[in-house]
Amino acid sequence: MTTTTDALSSTGATTLVDTLTANNVRACFANPGTSEMHFVAALDHCPSLRPILCLFEGVATGAADGYGRMADWPACTLLHLGPGYANGAANLHNARRAYTPIVNIIGDHATYHRAYDAPLNSDIMSLARPNSVWCRSAESASEMAAITVEAIRASLTPPNGPVSLILPADTAWSGLRAEPPPKVTAPERARVDSQRIEAIARAVRAAAKPVLLLGHQAALDAGLRQAARLEALGVRVFVDTFIARQPRGAGHFAPARLPYRAEGVKAELAGVDVMILAGTDSPVAFFAYPGQPSSFVPEGCRDISLASRTEDAVHALADLADALEAPLRGPTQELHLPEAPSGKLTPLSVGVSIARHLPENAIVCDDSVTSRDGVTAASSTARPHEVLALTGGSIGIAIPLAIGAAVAKPASKVVCLSGDGAAMYTLQGLWTMARESLDVVTIVFANRSYKILHQEFTRTGAGSPHASAATLLNLTPPDLDWVSLSRGMGVPATRCQTAEEFENCFRRASAEPGPCLIEAVLA
Amino acid sequence: MTTTTDALSSTGATTLVDTLTANNVRACFANPGTSEMHFVAALDHCPSLRPILCLFEGVATGAADGYGRMADWPACTLLHLGPGYANGAANLHNARRAYTPIVNIIGDHATYHRAYDAPLNSDIMSLARPNSVWCRSAESASEMAAITVEAIRASLTPPNGPVSLILPADTAWSGLRAEPPPKVTAPERARVDSQRIEAIARAVRAAAKPVLLLGHQAALDAGLRQAARLEALGVRVFVDTFIARQPRGAGHFAPARLPYRAEGVKAELAGVDVMILAGTDSPVAFFAYPGQPSSFVPEGCRDISLASRTEDAVHALADLADALEAPLRGPTQELHLPEAPSGKLTPLSVGVSIARHLPENAIVCDDSVTSRDGVTAASSTARPHEVLALTGGSIGIAIPLAIGAAVAKPASKVVCLSGDGAAMYTLQGLWTMARESLDVVTIVFANRSYKILHQEFTRTGAGSPHASAATLLNLTPPDLDWVSLSRGMGVPATRCQTAEEFENCFRRASAEPGPCLIEAVLA
Repeated sequence: MTTTTDALSSTGATTLVDTLTANNVRACFANPGTSEMHFVAALDHCPSLRPILCLFEGVATGAADGYGRMADWPACTLLHLGPGYANGAANLHNARRAYTPIVNIIGDHATYHRAYDAPLNSDIMSLARPNSVWCRSAESASEMAAITVEAIRASLTPPNGPVSLILPADTAWSGLRAEPPPKVTAPERARVDSQRIEAIARAVRAAAKPVLLLGHQAALDAGLRQAARLEALGVRVFVDTFIARQPRGAGHFAPARLPYRAEGVKAELAGVDVMILAGTDSPVAFFAYPGQPSSFVPEGCRDISLASRTEDAVHALADLADALEAPLRGPTQELHLPEAPSGKLTPLSVGVSIARHLPENAIVCDDSVTSRDGVTAASSTARPHEVLALTGGSIGIAIPLAIGAAVAKPASKVVCLSGDGAAMYTLQGLWTMARESLDVVTIVFANRSYKILHQEFTRTGAGSPHASAATLLNLTPPDLDWVSLSRGMGVPATRCQTAEEFENCFRRASAEPGPCLIEAVLA
Repeated sequence: MTTTTDALSSTGATTLVDTLTANNVRACFANPGTSEMHFVAALDHCPSLRPILCLFEGVATGAADGYGRMADWPACTLLHLGPGYANGAANLHNARRAYTPIVNIIGDHATYHRAYDAPLNSDIMSLARPNSVWCRSAESASEMAAITVEAIRASLTPPNGPVSLILPADTAWSGLRAEPPPKVTAPERARVDSQRIEAIARAVRAAAKPVLLLGHQAALDAGLRQAARLEALGVRVFVDTFIARQPRGAGHFAPARLPYRAEGVKAELAGVDVMILAGTDSPVAFFAYPGQPSSFVPEGCRDISLASRTEDAVHALADLADALEAPLRGPTQELHLPEAPSGKLTPLSVGVSIARHLPENAIVCDDSVTSRDGVTAASSTARPHEVLALTGGSIGIAIPLAIGAAVAKPASKVVCLSGDGAAMYTLQGLWTMARESLDVVTIVFANRSYKILHQEFTRTGAGSPHASAATLLNLTPPDLDWVSLSRGMGVPATRCQTAEEFENCFRRASAEPGPCLIEAVLA
């Protein structure tokens, strides 16, 4: 066991923090414990790594996801042993499905203390592996710089993803000689060769009804612009149902969104004989249903990968458009703001108000579940903005995502959309919004139920819910009072029950900086 | 792929529910999703399995822990795939450390759907194994009854623990012929042989300063009574620092509690030459500290296991007491209720009011962290009650534990003690208390900081916290308003700032049934 001594100018913890900051890691979403105290102390000497306290780890990991999606560079988290990591694992599942670079720092017992199996001891590797693209423990301070660089690089290796760096307490507190921190070079995406481009161009030419499905990198601005050129040729373009980050609104190409449900997909893809995939995989059903197929590729349709998630989809799309002699520019949306809504408060009317008042460069974090289709309908012609969706199906990400997006892009207004059931998972994040004065409007859609489960109950063939089942699908009684919950964490809040109320409330919220919450009680 | 047909009278889901209820599993703490709809539907046909909705999975698993500790029989949870399980894993870590029988039902994709790696797919086994004493997936409906019995039996195999039964959606919905559900016989604890008893009796007789350390089964009523006989002989008796369940108050033997900190342990155990362990292992430091040993067994002291966690500690203690010719009854506490407190509100004054008004057979669920020692000081002579502690060090268990204890023992008043930092982890449980009208008084100790980390910062040698570190140790600004938070979930709440206010408030709360919350703002 070695301890920090004055003769050695660094410790494992200061080396870790120095290596992170030398590599442009700027935010640490943290919920520390005893084993992380030396890492916390190291932050005092490195003000360029911003510490952001989250009162639950699922907030920290979801915030790192939002940050990583917007910065295209990792933030770090600081988590307390196995249970702290586990609390953050559900949103890391979403981050893995969003291919977001994140460096999780997981504190652990001192290496020599593990053998005593103290109460907080557990198998962190087993917990972390399913949602980590890389996972290692720093067993000594001397390897700290090298392992940190390896971690950052792994998170930035296409298609990117969360990594887990386990930091035993003695590695953190042990002294070592200070060295200049090493720098990471992020690996580039592999280019797609011309043979594949040519073969796909031939397949598109020969197809009766070709479609293009975009995901991940291909659904960002540069990819959308190239995809629009193919749409101009008559190739219908879709994006994945759930996209980590997508620019929308005026000036952007607006591809169709692949529906969530098999029935909708079937209707949209009827007669399609060739499906080109860029930055994504063949589409599959979100869940299995009795008697329904798992694949969403229509029978008789050929699905061909133009660019996998690790390949350069933007260049591949450009090369394909060139090979097909597509025009240099495809269609984009014109600005069109709808009329003010009135009457009942519905997802559609909320969406109209959002479309009207969404400021330019706003970021919309969307976990609104059954309200989603209505609320996003009007905003495709709103001012240009970006949307971050729930990628992994684990609800409770909107509030954390919004925190991370607001930290990464302090000049943007962030709009956080959440179902009431979903918002309950990580409501602790409202406190972090208040503490950090983040510019976030949180909208909670209060339908007082897990509404999607009412639909899924029937769709899975489970029949109709009676007493016991209904207990598990409804969020009332009692009604959650989101105004109280929000104020209890320091975020001003209002309840709206009509379209007019919401229109006024959201208009004000869009214009004023700082956090606020609107409980939208749906009719 | 098979689907439910009218010709077959059961499904995998109804078989699972029937087998659970035939084996006396009476409560299901649930947060379901699409893949669990057939299990939910099966509950409609089985009213003796009570469905209790929890708005976050950490509430469900912690509630199952509280239930299992009090019922000495498992409840089940219902969790939604890998992320749903992960959200519940931290409190299952605590349950594993409490050796609580729990049957976790984890819904999964249909077996044939897994290969498509849909967004919610993940490696559930890897996530579940660290906190499960048994983990299996039911790959077909025909094995459902057998695997359910295996699961229940595994959870009840000494020393008991949480098990994970993975339920693919097609296993749940597939039809099969109804059969009478099989019954589980819980395995018994192994008896300790007389040779070991004799050897330990000799060691105690020869010792200058012997102590006995109790844990787990040995700290329940029958074990305490036998341990008191040894105390009467001059063997000082301790209990583990954190005990899953311990009877306290008038009529019970009150062993000393092993301190949390090395300094305290050192003072208590100075000169001890023999340490007898019953139902527990050799004591170790909760965390490592630079230059401090990991083991709490004093140098030169011999630690000897009388009964391991899987053995019958109660009979072993009785046999040892007989071998040493101890009196048949040892010391017990007399009822003594302290005077009403006045002045500043402190953990000690709160503890005095609790001791005064705690009803007979109350259950105290304790995650009060730095307030713990003060708050429990006065209650060792209160009316007889039981205390459930945080066993695994993952804070955020008091609210869930209280839910489970209240469901298991509806005739008892439950008192839930939580630090403000800890309570934030699982505050969603307040809603479940309101919905189920549970008889729980929740007391949140508001010191506006992770106070223990302020202490640990120094103790780990990290120095003094400056700007960045202080950000991560303090819960203010902004102040959490627990009255608003509680009311927002339907639980009436009051804020107390003096000992007199708290005394009045807790007296009323003890006398009135139903949930309420007291924010104790510490001086």
